Formats: sequence, C-alpha cells, structure tokens
Amino acid sequence: MSKSTRVDVINVGNELLLGIRDNSHLTYLGKHLSRHGLPIRRSLVSRDRPQDLEELFLGVCRDADIVITTGGLGPTSDDITRETISRALGLPLRRNPQAEASIRKRFSRMGRQVYEEVLQQADIPEGAEVIPNHFGTAPGIWLEKDQQTVIMMPGPGEELKPMLEGFVLPRLQDKGLAVADGSYLQLRTFGAGEAELEARINPLLDQAGNRVAVAFCAHAGMVDLRLSTNDEHLSQDELNTIAQACRKAIGDDFVCLGETSLAELVLNQLRELGKTMAVAESCTGGLLSNAFTDIPGASKSFAGGVVCYTNDVKVQMLGVPESIIQQHGSVSAECAAALATGAAEHFFSDYALSITGFAGPAGGTPENPVGTIFLGYFSPVGVWSRKVVYPGSRLAVKARAVHAALDWINRNLREYQMEDLLASMSAYS
Amino acid sequence: MSKSTRVDVINVGNELLLGIRDNSHLTYLGKHLSRHGLPIRRSLVSRDRPQDLEELFLGVCRDADIVITTGGLGPTSDDITRETISRALGLPLRRNPQAEASIRKRFSRMGRQVYEEVLQQADIPEGAEVIPNHFGTAPGIWLEKDQQTVIMMPGPGEELKPMLEGFVLPRLQDKGLAVADGSYLQLRTFGAGEAELEARINPLLDQAGNRVAVAFCAHAGMVDLRLSTNDEHLSQDELNTIAQACRKAIGDDFVCLGETSLAELVLNQLRELGKTMAVAESCTGGLLSNAFTDIPGASKSFAGGVVCYTNDVKVQMLGVPESIIQQHGSVSAECAAALATGAAEHFFSDYALSITGFAGPAGGTPENPVGTIFLGYFSPVGVWSRKVVYPGSRLAVKARAVHAALDWINRNLREYQMEDLLASMSAYS
Repeated sequence: MSKSTRVDVINVGNELLLGIRDNSHLTYLGKHLSRHGLPIRRSLVSRDRPQDLEELFLGVCRDADIVITTGGLGPTSDDITRETISRALGLPLRRNPQAEASIRKRFSRMGRQVYEEVLQQADIPEGAEVIPNHFGTAPGIWLEKDQQTVIMMPGPGEELKPMLEGFVLPRLQDKGLAVADGSYLQLRTFGAGEAELEARINPLLDQAGNRVAVAFCAHAGMVDLRLSTNDEHLSQDELNTIAQACRKAIGDDFVCLGETSLAELVLNQLRELGKTMAVAESCTGGLLSNAFTDIPGASKSFAGGVVCYTNDVKVQMLGVPESIIQQHGSVSAECAAALATGAAEHFFSDYALSITGFAGPAGGTPENPVGTIFLGYFSPVGVWSRKVVYPGSRLAVKARAVHAALDWINRNLREYQMEDLLASMSAYS
Repeated sequence: MSKSTRVDVINVGNELLLGIRDNSHLTYLGKHLSRHGLPIRRSLVSRDRPQDLEELFLGVCRDADIVITTGGLGPTSDDITRETISRALGLPLRRNPQAEASIRKRFSRMGRQVYEEVLQQADIPEGAEVIPNHFGTAPGIWLEKDQQTVIMMPGPGEELKPMLEGFVLPRLQDKGLAVADGSYLQLRTFGAGEAELEARINPLLDQAGNRVAVAFCAHAGMVDLRLSTNDEHLSQDELNTIAQACRKAIGDDFVCLGETSLAELVLNQLRELGKTMAVAESCTGGLLSNAFTDIPGASKSFAGGVVCYTNDVKVQMLGVPESIIQQHGSVSAECAAALATGAAEHFFSDYALSITGFAGPAGGTPENPVGTIFLGYFSPVGVWSRKVVYPGSRLAVKARAVHAALDWINRNLREYQMEDLLASMSAYS
C-alpha cells in the first residue's frame, strides 16, 4: 500500500450537472475509500456524452492508478460509460454469457420481457471481469490495463454500495492497494465555530511539526474535524495521541470520535441508563423524531413524538394549558416547557425534548422574528427552556434547531453520567 | 447567449473527497445555471492543495468560458482558492479597503476580535471585483481575463446562494451570457421505472427527430424526466408540445411538471378543497410529517402527526383497539387502517395517512420480512390499507414508504377533484 496511490472518480450523468440529483456517490466513495487508505485525488462529473467522458478519462485520469466510474451502465440511450471506456482503451465489447444468463433470470423472475437493450448490459470489454450485481441488472466491470485499474459501477446506490463493499474493496485489499483499517480520525464537535476550533487546536498541530493535516466541515451547527497525515512515518498510535490532545483542547464542545449522530449518542446514553424519551415538535415538524428513528433499534429508548402544528393539538394531545398559549403565545419559553412536560407525561417517558418557533419564511413577531426557536427539555429533575436564534432558510433553521435540541440533552446526559460516576467514586473513597 | 457557452465548476475542499460532506453545491449550481441557459459542462472537485487546484484550473478549464469555484476563501490554512487562482493567472493580491471595512464591521458587531488571517479574506486579485457577502465574512471574487470569466464564491451554502442569485446570475444576464427564463422541462413521475418510461415516450422523441434529449433521475421511487434540446432552432413552444405529448404517454404515473414535491402537491390540493390531514407513523418515524412541514405554510392543511413507535402509544394516543394489535400485530393492514382512522379522529382532520412496517435492519417475520410496509389512508368516504415491500437499507425503505403514501393520497385527491369536476359538468349538461 502506498500513500500516493492516485485514485480518480468519474461520476457520469447529466442529472448530476443539471441539479436534478446530488452527487452523493462521491461522498459515499470518499468515505469508504479514505477509510481504506485510498483517499480520492480528484473527482470529475461528466455529461452523458461519449466525447466528454473520453476527454476526461484519457486526459485528466491518464496518470491515475485507479479510475472508478459510476453510472451510465444501464439500458437507456443516455448510458454511455461501457461503450466509451472500451473504445477509449481500444477494447472491443463481448457479450458475457454468465452476465446474460443472470439478467434473463432476473427478468423472468419478475415476469418481465427481456429487450435487446437490456441484454446489452452484459457486454463487457475484452479481458475485463464481471462484478456481479445482486441488486440490479447492470453488472459492474473490473478492468486492468497498462498499470491502470478501471472499475465501472452502476449508478443506483443500492446496487453500487454492495458492489463496492462486497467486491471492490476486498479485491483492492487482496491486491495490496487498500488497507483493512482506517487511516484518519474524525473529531465531531458542537458549539464552537471553525475558526475558534482551529485556534484551540493549532498550537497542538504546530507542536506535532505539521505532520497532521486537518479538514473542517460544518453542517447545521456541528463541526467535524478530520485529522489525517501525509507523513508515512506517522503511526496510527501517534495520530491517536494527537487526536486525544485535540479532544482535550476542544473541551466540552467535543461530541464524539467518528461520525456517530447526536441522536444515536443520546439513544446510547438512554439505553445505558435504562431510560426513555419522547418528543413534541412544532416548527421542526417531525425532523427531530426522524433523527431518532433513523437509528436502528431506536424503539428501545424512543417512545415517540407528536408533531403539534396547531394550538389545538398542543392543548388536546399534549395537555398544554390554554392559558399559557393565550398569555405567552405558542412560540415562548413557557410553551416549550409545557410541551416537553406534556410529551413526557403522554408518552410515559423519563425525558422529553420540545421545539417550538418560527422556521420561516412567514411568521414571526417583532420580539421573536423568523429564526427564533424555543427549546424545552424535561428530565426527572426538572424542566427547562432556552431561546436560540438561527439565520437561514426554513430547512436550515429546522436542521439547526434539531441539532441544538439533541446537543442539549446529550450534554446533560453526559454530565449526569459523570456526576453519577463521581458520586459513586466518592461513596467508596 | 449561445448554447455552447462552456461552464466548468470547481468545488474545492478535502471534505468533499473524503466523504465528510455532500457536494450539494454542484446540485444547486447545476439547477440554477441550467435554468438560466448555462448548463454546466463538467464539474471537478479539487483537494485543498494549491498544486492540485492549479493543475485542474489551468489544465481542464483552459477552454472554459466561465469557471466557477466554490470554497477555499475562508481564513483557515486549508483555504487556498484565492491565492492559487491569483498565482495561476499571474495576478498579485491586493487588500480591498471596502471588503476589509466590511469584515471589521461584521466582527465588531459580533463583539469578536479581528485576526490578520480574517482580514486576508479581503485580499483580491488585481483587476478583480469584490462580490459582497451579506451573510458571512469572505467576499466573492469576479474576475475577467483573456476571454474567461472566473467567479469565486465561498463554501457555506447560506453565503453562496444569495451571492449567486443576487449578484452572479443577474450579472451574467446583463452580459448576455445567461437568459432570464428556463430552457428545459421536467416531468415528475411516480409508479413506473426508468426503462418503462423510456419505452412509453421513445416513439414521441423519435417522431420529434431526436431534437430533444432526455435525462432520467430516480429517487426513492420517483422518476424525473428532464427534456432539453441541443438544437438551437427548437423553440420553447415546440419543447412544450413534446413535453405535453410525453405527459399523455406517461398517463396516470405523471405527477407534475417541474420539481414540486409530492407533499406540496398534496397540501395544495387540500388547501383548494379546504380540507386538512393528519399522520400516524410507526416505522417512518416522523419522515412523513417532516415532508409536509418542509413546505412553507403547511400549517393551513397539515394538522399534525404522531410518531407511534410503541404499541402503547398506538393504543393510548391514537385509540387503536388492543384487540387489533393482539390479533393481527402492529405491522398489519388492520393496524394501518386503525392508525389512519385514529389520526383523523384525534387531530380532527378530514384525511389521514398512516405507515407501519419493518424498516429494518432487525425485525420482520417470515410472512412480513424487513421491507414490508402497510399504508393506511383515511378519507371522508372510507378507510383503506395497502401492503408494499421495498428492498434496501432502513433509510431507503423509510424514504420509499413516505413517497408511496404521498403518491397514494395525491392520486386519490386528483381523482376526487376530477370526479367532482365531471359531476358538476354533468349537472349542467
């Protein structure tokens, strides 16, 4: 394995350039390849035009050790990857009998007729190998020529992902190109901005003689710091030591190592405590509940939630006193507290979070303009509320408010566990 | 405006290649630029290394008419775009006094100290113009040199978006490079797969002499068809006519022109009818409610929802009879119907949707394996349930189930309005 393996990715598809679809495959590939010691050098997106793809493939990727393409292997007329790459490499296409049989079998199982265009997906460049597709029709293609490995994978995520993880990464490991284990460390933080975080950790990185590079990534109030090294002589242990020092320097704003979501961290803590929680959401409209229920096994600690968009629902489903809404309005610290209490009571949960506010674009008052959010937090020892104000679009405000609520309970549960630990230690001292 | 303006986009940032962040800016830029007659030719993602960026900028983009960069304008050490592009073009950086004043003002308003690294964001290549940043610190840069326009914009979305829409697009229109109006048409569909849709519309495209190109994009069961033309002589009217013919050929699976979400279409129909709806979700855990509440003004027609993860909540918050859960289980057609009825009753709504199922990865029974979902639909004329089975991950199953529920009510409301229209017509005949 060499640190300098040049990996280029070409994502093929007009839809990626026309803004119809996010290029999420790049994110997916980047994450998995960098974890296996093969960070992507550059990524290119090509239109569905043979000339464009050929120009990028032969031009930009000529010195790449590995070229990975996604998309353009299907049966429709805009699927050009197979033909273009074969022609660019001077390799004729040959119908692969196993791939053809597998397509025929798949279609007959679904009771669908097999057109010739569908069977063309079994055409493979001479000397190439078929990568089986267990979740779709178009097989992938593994091709080695002139010191270059070209890996073509289909566009649909549910076909590409099992192919990468089940075939491509293991094969790259077998060939000594990829490593089994990760070669970077990520520190997840919440609370401080990028510049502030950099100021906190820069002395440590300077001290390490700049052998460690840091990449920042902020999303909805969360900032991820990814520490990696281009110095082949820096061991994983040394990187760990530096990461631990950074973690200390970040202090209370440190969330976790890796990329566990705040919702998962909260659920893990609740499970350890044997406690449950519930949610009452107004302006975030289900996004907070959804963050919890994205986590497998959430039902053990997450009792449920109410999306209480109207005042009637707040009163009737969650028992918020009408007088609170009349006196303070539904966007108020008082209402947030009553919502959290109501959620805990109605779902019989130990903890509860609530969110009420003006996500925009309409709404708001002079005192509480659009972007004003009240968070409520109910715990066995009391109920609190907090006001936060976020700039940005409706969706940005929703995402930020959800992160802020999750960070609040996460910090509290962490402190609670710490106090509990200290108490039990002092009991034995 | 020429159809052949070559627009290249370079997104700068290790985080995009390491899988820390989706390159959603490409989607955003692609959508807006193509709408304004400037489809992106190719997109490149560069690491935060001056040599890499320079190689891509001078190499791949040498014949581009417009190069747009995003990211790398900030104050931290991995922000290299400004310096690298200036050097590549042989232009020295000069501190821009207006930009500096604006940064100082911003920082003093926030009560924060101004470091020299922060002020370096006001350094602009000689001859370039500052694009004001009203939502952040780093200004954008507009640069014209040797027939090429280079537009550098900051990475954070809330800064880039107002800059593109408020300055860059209007300026490109002033220069005659962009058009005011759209130059493509999108047909949104639900129900048929890509190959099936292509089979339905291909005769029409052949008939149009292949002057119209089509790009497909499937997401969570929805398939978007974008019709565009490279033939400068095809008028917008002719494209419209072809699109209308395609719409007919697609039949009932046609959802809408453009990119309105299913949730918004449902809310629009409910508003027209003066009706409301509510939601009860088990396995989708808030995602359906969230789809509604992402739409501004949702509160007019969306009463709210319950995330009922546990059987207790189904019984106590929504009045599902315990006997149904005991006899049929919570993942059953019977429970889905009871949940929809319960949601309509408890939220006093005219319509209701429910979703219960096994999203995975754990759970499921031999009869109803992971991926099995029951949808419930309550309307003023009755309650129905339906079983669907989806492959894929927990998140994919959730997304698909939500789309299927939305498509169900959307079709029903459409048919209802159609019947109503026919009834009122026959009354007058």
